Amino acid sequence: MNNSVIGIDIGGTNTTIGLVDPNGIVFATKNISTQEYSEEKPYLDDISTTIETLLSENSIENFDGIGIGAPNASFKTGCIEENTANLKIKTRIQICDYLHNMFNTKVVVSNDADAAAFGEYIYGGAKNCDNFIMVTLGTGVGSGFFVDGHLAHGVDCMAGELGHFIINPFNGRLCSCGRSGCVETYASARGICQTFRELAEKEHKLYPNLDLSNITSKQIGDLAHQNDEIALKTFDVTAYWLSLSLANAATFSAPEKIFLMGGPTRVGAPLVEPLKRYFDQHILYIYKGKIKIELSSLNANEAAILGAAALIYSK
Amino acid sequence: MNNSVIGIDIGGTNTTIGLVDPNGIVFATKNISTQEYSEEKPYLDDISTTIETLLSENSIENFDGIGIGAPNASFKTGCIEENTANLKIKTRIQICDYLHNMFNTKVVVSNDADAAAFGEYIYGGAKNCDNFIMVTLGTGVGSGFFVDGHLAHGVDCMAGELGHFIINPFNGRLCSCGRSGCVETYASARGICQTFRELAEKEHKLYPNLDLSNITSKQIGDLAHQNDEIALKTFDVTAYWLSLSLANAATFSAPEKIFLMGGPTRVGAPLVEPLKRYFDQHILYIYKGKIKIELSSLNANEAAILGAAALIYSK
Repeated sequence: MNNSVIGIDIGGTNTTIGLVDPNGIVFATKNISTQEYSEEKPYLDDISTTIETLLSENSIENFDGIGIGAPNASFKTGCIEENTANLKIKTRIQICDYLHNMFNTKVVVSNDADAAAFGEYIYGGAKNCDNFIMVTLGTGVGSGFFVDGHLAHGVDCMAGELGHFIINPFNGRLCSCGRSGCVETYASARGICQTFRELAEKEHKLYPNLDLSNITSKQIGDLAHQNDEIALKTFDVTAYWLSLSLANAATFSAPEKIFLMGGPTRVGAPLVEPLKRYFDQHILYIYKGKIKIELSSLNANEAAILGAAALIYSK
Repeated sequence: MNNSVIGIDIGGTNTTIGLVDPNGIVFATKNISTQEYSEEKPYLDDISTTIETLLSENSIENFDGIGIGAPNASFKTGCIEENTANLKIKTRIQICDYLHNMFNTKVVVSNDADAAAFGEYIYGGAKNCDNFIMVTLGTGVGSGFFVDGHLAHGVDCMAGELGHFIINPFNGRLCSCGRSGCVETYASARGICQTFRELAEKEHKLYPNLDLSNITSKQIGDLAHQNDEIALKTFDVTAYWLSLSLANAATFSAPEKIFLMGGPTRVGAPLVEPLKRYFDQHILYIYKGKIKIELSSLNANEAAILGAAALIYSK
């Protein structure tokens, strides 16, 4: 870790390219619009040009590699696989080969949750922690986990789909995966909003200033900090279901820590406090008191770039 | 893998020591009674003497190591930890150090489920399979899993407690761990017997030739092969709950195969067929059709020795 590295965060809307120094400081970034591209070649050409501009503007001559976090990306093939939801480019994107040929450096791609785990391992609260789970709450619920100092990939790099743990096999909510009772239906941003609407309706509580059908988890978080009972109860219910999946995952991989990241986690205590309490109730006795639940220590605005950059330190 | 290796299977009743050739043939074994010993030193002395006798009787001069499968054993400390249930010796047993000093060879200890996983990896159906889960059904339900070619240990070697996945959080059976709804309460030998008794009572079916309060999973298996409806339904219920935990575990570690081992699995089709069917219903679509469920390919009487022996090939 002597030189800077490049981290690329690919989202459906924007692609952010950042320069990260050896201390984990993101000292320069540039964006291009992902959704403007429907073909692989011009998209990769423009990423490449943007990297060159960033390097030139910051007088960087040597850097140690390029890490990329992207949806539906495979660490093993180095590609963003075909038919990725939220991307207009529907073919396979051979991003590692392309950037390796352009810059003759180590290039690594992985999915967002794995990148988040790597970011925490290299730059955040998981330094020197060989066994941990990173859980990302957002549109969905994802996870990446380290066991014995290695990020778990599994067959086709499909490990870590903790969002699709079935934790309520009876009467569970219908999930976008077609099954019922996945934790994602409760702990994703959408799940949290649904819980809020259901509780408000059940309690006959009206919010004349809010459009409940379009409410966001951020708004519910703000209400929780104003001690709104429905909002607080919403995060309590979310924590309950999430804790069941975390207890099962921990029972399997025996982590030292579990980290949380993503929009809905920014509410902080209203989610984290009941989560710790329910987790302690649900965890098997042999692990009790041994597993810490923490929010990611990375700056939320930089976490995706840092996670991507950190991937170049993977083996 | 040029020379033979020694595998030691430590159970509460017996300790079996076996010689295993490089092809995985167990060509000599000797037993000593575990329960006769209440102190570490005489127990380890007698294991050592028995190894020397075995080597001498079989004219073995060189061997590649000693692997030990034991309850409550730690791969990392090389010990059977203190207060192990089912062992009369209640102190920590420093078995690796002791045998290493006696025989100047690699000595590895791990818990039974990890040893079973290693046995399958080295000698059985998981050869060349870098991602798999081994599930052991018996008095309890245990598991060991490989991810990316490594056996997962986790903190304090406590990974793989799949038996304590909570899969029925409401109205679940009380587990010996103090919580409710663990898969062990349904898929262990005891759980299977409880299901049989509950179903027989519900259906008012009498078994005048059986002592239902002391029935064994083996007897229920025999009934299933005689097409007894209650017995068949028992394994169907067992398969249902087990499939939920396997689907969640597979969603986390993305295996290529799941192996089953242990007494209750010997019934074969009455358990395995509904298990495959329910697993296919419960597994997340991205894994569908990609994960095979198989019985261990090792001879049931030799699996524990082979698993122990295989541990010496761990890194």
